[in-house]
Amino acid sequence: MSGSGEGQGKKTVTACVLLIGDEILSGRTKDSNLSHIAHQLNQIGIQVREARVIPDIEAEIVATVNEVRAKYDYVLTTGGIGPTHDDITADAVAKAFGVSIGPDPDAMALLQAHYAETGGDFTPARQRMARLPQGASMIANPLSKAPGFQIGNVFVMAGVPMVMHVMLDSLLSRLEGGASMLSRSLTASIGEGTIAEKLGEIQSRHADVSIGSYPYYRGREFGTSIVMRSVDSSALERAATDVAQMFAQLGVSAVEGEKT
Amino acid sequence: MSGSGEGQGKKTVTACVLLIGDEILSGRTKDSNLSHIAHQLNQIGIQVREARVIPDIEAEIVATVNEVRAKYDYVLTTGGIGPTHDDITADAVAKAFGVSIGPDPDAMALLQAHYAETGGDFTPARQRMARLPQGASMIANPLSKAPGFQIGNVFVMAGVPMVMHVMLDSLLSRLEGGASMLSRSLTASIGEGTIAEKLGEIQSRHADVSIGSYPYYRGREFGTSIVMRSVDSSALERAATDVAQMFAQLGVSAVEGEKT
Repeated sequence: MSGSGEGQGKKTVTACVLLIGDEILSGRTKDSNLSHIAHQLNQIGIQVREARVIPDIEAEIVATVNEVRAKYDYVLTTGGIGPTHDDITADAVAKAFGVSIGPDPDAMALLQAHYAETGGDFTPARQRMARLPQGASMIANPLSKAPGFQIGNVFVMAGVPMVMHVMLDSLLSRLEGGASMLSRSLTASIGEGTIAEKLGEIQSRHADVSIGSYPYYRGREFGTSIVMRSVDSSALERAATDVAQMFAQLGVSAVEGEKT
Repeated sequence: MSGSGEGQGKKTVTACVLLIGDEILSGRTKDSNLSHIAHQLNQIGIQVREARVIPDIEAEIVATVNEVRAKYDYVLTTGGIGPTHDDITADAVAKAFGVSIGPDPDAMALLQAHYAETGGDFTPARQRMARLPQGASMIANPLSKAPGFQIGNVFVMAGVPMVMHVMLDSLLSRLEGGASMLSRSLTASIGEGTIAEKLGEIQSRHADVSIGSYPYYRGREFGTSIVMRSVDSSALERAATDVAQMFAQLGVSAVEGEKT
C-alpha cells in the first residue's frame, strides 16, 4: 500500500457493538441503534468491525462481553439497564469484569433529585438504575437521567434509541479515534452483473480502497451503487476516477451518491 | 416447570442469523432481514438465539460459520452471494466446511435460461452465482433466479430483502421446528419504575414464562408494554392473568397488544 492521504500512518481503531435484548431476537423490535452508532463512530475514526445481538441471559452476556472486549478496542452495548427484572446487563457486565456492583452515591443523588423534581417515587426498582459495577464511571443521560456507565473499554448504554443517542453523545469524547474512514459513492442504472468484471479489476488495482457493490431495485427501475471506502483520501480519489471511467466506457451516466 | 400446554415435551430448536456485509457495519444499510427471519422462524417453532453482523472478510466468515453451526440447530446467513468481487460468502462457507466450490450444472442451466429470456449476457461474473459448495443443495429464488444454497445446517441467502424473502419461503419446509413460542402482551400508560417490583414478583412465580418489559415514549405520552412468551399456553395465560391483575390493582387500564 502507498498513499499520501492524511489517514496514512494513523492506527486503525476498532469497535464491537452488542445489542442486548430478547425483543430484537424475537423480531418484536427492529434495531435502529447499530447504524446510528456506526455512523457516529465512523466520524471520529473508529470502525465497527462486528455487531452481535444476544439475549437477556446472564451467561451469554458475560461470555460475549469477555470475548469481544479482548478482541476490539472498544465495546458499546445497548439494552438491559432499566428498572425491571429483565434488565440484567449491568450485573452481567460486572460479572464479566469480576467486580461487585452496588449503588453509586452520585447516581443515587442524581436520580433522587430527578424523581423529587418530577414527582415520581424513587422506588427500589428505580434505585437499581443507580447501581454501577465497582470501578465504573457514569455516562450522562440528559434525557431520563438514569446513567449508562463505562468500565474498562466497555460502554453500557440504554436500548431506547433516543436515550441511547444522548448517552452516545455523552461518551464520544472519551473515545480515541484513529484513521478516519473516508467514502465516495457513485450510482448508475446498470446491473451488477454487467460491471462485475471491470469492477473486480478496479478493486485489484486499488488494494487500499474497499470497493462495495450494492444493487437497488425500485419496481422496474434498478441499478448499482458503488461505495468506495479508504483512510487514504488520494487513493480514494484515484479509485473513484477509475469507477467513473468504467461507467463512462459502458455508456451509462453515473451520479454522485448512493441509492438503497 | 409444569404445564399442560401443547408446547410441553417438544424440544427447543435454535437458530443463529449471520448478517454478512460491510455495508451494515458501516451504517450505510439498516438491516431489516433479522426481524423478518425471526418472525418466520418463530412461527414454525424455531427460536433465534443469536445474530451477528460480520464484515466481508473471508477469515471472519469462516471462523464465525464454524463456531455457530456447532452451537445452534440452524444457521441462516444473508448477504454476499451476488456477482461482484465483494461477494465472497459462498467461497467462505465452502472453506468453513472444508469442501471445494464450483459451477453447479442445475444452477448454470437455470441462470443460462434466465438470461436468455431476459436478454442479459450470461457473463463470467453472473456465472459465479451458479457456483455451489460440494454437497450443497440449491435454495430456489423465484424472483431473480440466482439461487441460495444449503450445506449441512447452514442456509445461505441473498442480502437484498425482497430476494431474501423468497429464498426464506423456499427453504422453510426444510427446517424442523420444535415447540412453538407463544406470546401475549399487555400495554398500559404507566412507567416501568412503578410496576417493576410487582412485575419481578410475577416473573418469579412464572418460571416457565419469559416476561419482558418495554417502555415506549410518544412525546409526552409514555407507558410500558409487557410481553410474555412461553411454549406452554396454559402457563402463558396464568401469567397474563397476573399481569392484568397487577395493572388493575394499580388503577390503570391495560390493553391487549404492544406499543413500540
